[in-house]
Amino acid sequence: MTRRIHVIGIGAGDPDYVTAQAVTALNDTRVFFAMDKGDTKDDLVALRRLICERFIREPGYRFHEMPDPPRAKDSEYRQAVADWHAERARLWADAITSELGPGDVGAFLAWGDPSLYDSTLRILDRVAEHVDIDYDVIPGITAIQALTARHRIPLNDVGEPVLITTGRQLRASGLAGSAVVMLDADCSFQGCPPDTRIWWGAYLGTADELLFSGTVGDVGAHIVTARAAARAEHGWIMDTYLLRGPE
Amino acid sequence: MTRRIHVIGIGAGDPDYVTAQAVTALNDTRVFFAMDKGDTKDDLVALRRLICERFIREPGYRFHEMPDPPRAKDSEYRQAVADWHAERARLWADAITSELGPGDVGAFLAWGDPSLYDSTLRILDRVAEHVDIDYDVIPGITAIQALTARHRIPLNDVGEPVLITTGRQLRASGLAGSAVVMLDADCSFQGCPPDTRIWWGAYLGTADELLFSGTVGDVGAHIVTARAAARAEHGWIMDTYLLRGPE
Ligand SMILES: C[S@@+](CC[C@H](N)C(=O)[O-])C[C@H]1O[C@@H](n2cnc3c(N)ncnc32)[C@H](O)[C@@H]1O
Ligand SMILES: C[S@@+](CC[C@H](N)C(=O)[O-])C[C@H]1O[C@@H](n2cnc3c(N)ncnc32)[C@H](O)[C@@H]1O
Repeated sequence: MTRRIHVIGIGAGDPDYVTAQAVTALNDTRVFFAMDKGDTKDDLVALRRLICERFIREPGYRFHEMPDPPRAKDSEYRQAVADWHAERARLWADAITSELGPGDVGAFLAWGDPSLYDSTLRILDRVAEHVDIDYDVIPGITAIQALTARHRIPLNDVGEPVLITTGRQLRASGLAGSAVVMLDADCSFQGCPPDTRIWWGAYLGTADELLFSGTVGDVGAHIVTARAAARAEHGWIMDTYLLRGPE
Repeated sequence: MTRRIHVIGIGAGDPDYVTAQAVTALNDTRVFFAMDKGDTKDDLVALRRLICERFIREPGYRFHEMPDPPRAKDSEYRQAVADWHAERARLWADAITSELGPGDVGAFLAWGDPSLYDSTLRILDRVAEHVDIDYDVIPGITAIQALTARHRIPLNDVGEPVLITTGRQLRASGLAGSAVVMLDADCSFQGCPPDTRIWWGAYLGTADELLFSGTVGDVGAHIVTARAAARAEHGWIMDTYLLRGPE
């Protein structure tokens, strides 16, 4: 019998971002598969456990931690990612067959929404080539929605497009129109003209949340300083920002 | 005393997309302000009421319907939108002061997420120039996340950007990389090369959901036909799709 897997978006920070649909899926799950990142993001692991404790009514579930294969640093980026996905898929297939009986239900908790800069779906797609699994996806609140909600701003200008992009891509291609930037360890907004408008947020939806907005010229240097200080204090940081050209 | 307003994202279709944070805000609200669209989207009005009935524990709330000013058809698009926002802001300011006492809590329910192609925040910003209100924004699941969840696909290729855009913009600018298209009454994907990949969804998260995927050449004409038939049957349609270049 087929094993069932939920891929559950848990929202990007506030446990109350969890949806009613996610709560149903959490309560349906016996085994939560989690990656042991062995790094300093203990806060994020703690948040996952907190969500389970808060929203699961019967204590019959458990966590199964899987080692996270290291990503090769020296090879080409795409190839490194592909190898890493293949290696993860092997580990996940083993864990699913050993930890779940036929007909059992497991889950992966994805930060924010499972579709956005997250590898869970790509890896499960490969797992499904080897193991008989049936999976569904439960959407979650992304860091983008957390950012706009906390700044109380629209994402797009009326009828206009918005690009969702990364720090790396922003540095390579520059800004055209509006863009939300994620996965940026380098405050890449510094390369934008000083009259570019920025709405920046870190640790969105958590007690440590930081919000700044203004023009890159006015608040950019301040964000760089505040980001470095927060990162040093917590040991990690997640930040996202919306950029728009001058008014 | 300041009147408080919640702008609550209710998710883009499935009532179970509602978050725990939204449920708290719903229960905190005395008056729900709603636009009387006077059109055939009765299903959407019904869904809003269903969400209130399902998630609000005490029946002390009420709905206040406001007339929706017509949007001028003949003037320039941006000017027409600006005039319409100004007119709405006047009506909303009146309704808020007459329906809410000082210190009372009102709410606007936004379809999906309030930041995405939605005018509520822009109008409230203007209302706040005239009336003493304090508002917060509660994020919701967008049609984009509903689309990717139901197709079980990532939104972005690994490390790559995605454009969120409209049918009008797609026709004007064409496709570069990946794009999610919303607000498209014209199946504008038909202008893309036939080997463009498409993941299309309508009435996402509802019992009437339709999903198609393939290349524009293979499934495009079929989507056009199915869309027209569904629109005729229901009297309205909301559809969204993700486009990506050839594999
Ligand atoms: C690997 S991506 C995962 C995104 C996630 N799937 C989502 O839906 O938001 C991680 C990036 O998301 C952004 N991010 C996630 N959570 C955040 C938060 N609470 N505050 C600020 N940025 C956040 C940061 O840009 C971070 O580099
Ligand atoms: C005015 S915009 C509002 C978007 C909304 N704020 C959100 O977060 O999804 C309406 C457009 O959203 C998309 N949409 C909203 N709900 C949808 C659904 N359930 N299924 C498919 N598309 C939907 C359609 O492209 C529609 O034209």
